Amino acid sequence: MTRDRLAERYRAYIDCLNRQDWARLGDFVHDRVRYNDVQIGLDGYLRMLEGDFLAIPDLRFEIERLLVDPPGVACRLHFDCTPSGRLFGIPVNGQRVRFAENVFYEFEDERIAGVWSVIDKAAVAAQVQVAPPSS
Amino acid sequence: MTRDRLAERYRAYIDCLNRQDWARLGDFVHDRVRYNDVQIGLDGYLRMLEGDFLAIPDLRFEIERLLVDPPGVACRLHFDCTPSGRLFGIPVNGQRVRFAENVFYEFEDERIAGVWSVIDKAAVAAQVQVAPPSS
Repeated sequence: MTRDRLAERYRAYIDCLNRQDWARLGDFVHDRVRYNDVQIGLDGYLRMLEGDFLAIPDLRFEIERLLVDPPGVACRLHFDCTPSGRLFGIPVNGQRVRFAENVFYEFEDERIAGVWSVIDKAAVAAQVQVAPPSS
Repeated sequence: MTRDRLAERYRAYIDCLNRQDWARLGDFVHDRVRYNDVQIGLDGYLRMLEGDFLAIPDLRFEIERLLVDPPGVACRLHFDCTPSGRLFGIPVNGQRVRFAENVFYEFEDERIAGVWSVIDKAAVAAQVQVAPPSS
């Protein structure tokens, strides 16, 4: 796959997530996809995404930096959202948080077959004002 | 800069860190380098690295995945080390921890001018056995 084609495929994948077009997820994600070295498969990947949108009703994936080096893609994603309850174990409860995810992908047969992600959870914790215990 | 030249420059930078060859750091890092959108400059960058080696005497940077898309580089770094005291606010105290850093770089004039890093601090916290309070 050329660099331009891979960049186009990746952007189409991000659009698919933002539209929550789960019927098309398999066009972009391999049946045997691995996430942080665990084989979760397409079904596990879909459940993970559905869980993300349940925790963050206004979730939107924004590409901040994109590097393409076939068959790999690296992306710094930016999130600006208001998770409804706990996120990463942190009681966000509807506060606005902004954070980054630096993530690597490996493509096979034009689909994502491997993902290695690190999310800046510490940034979320630093932004959340935890209410003092009621007296 | 070609892809191959940039990959070679980045590997030489990692070697420089692992040798703690601070006299040569300026060959690889720009005077006005920005780290996570804060201009810390070469001096601030050196102080950050010196602090890292002070906290982690056996610190070693290992390239796990490298993507090169000039003028950008993205790297997943692997660490396997025994920090002497606290690391990221976590009382590691000489226990062995393994964690990843997903980091993006932008090069200018063959030197690193911008860095956007996310370190998997949650992985460190999950590995540390905190001793129960002594009775």
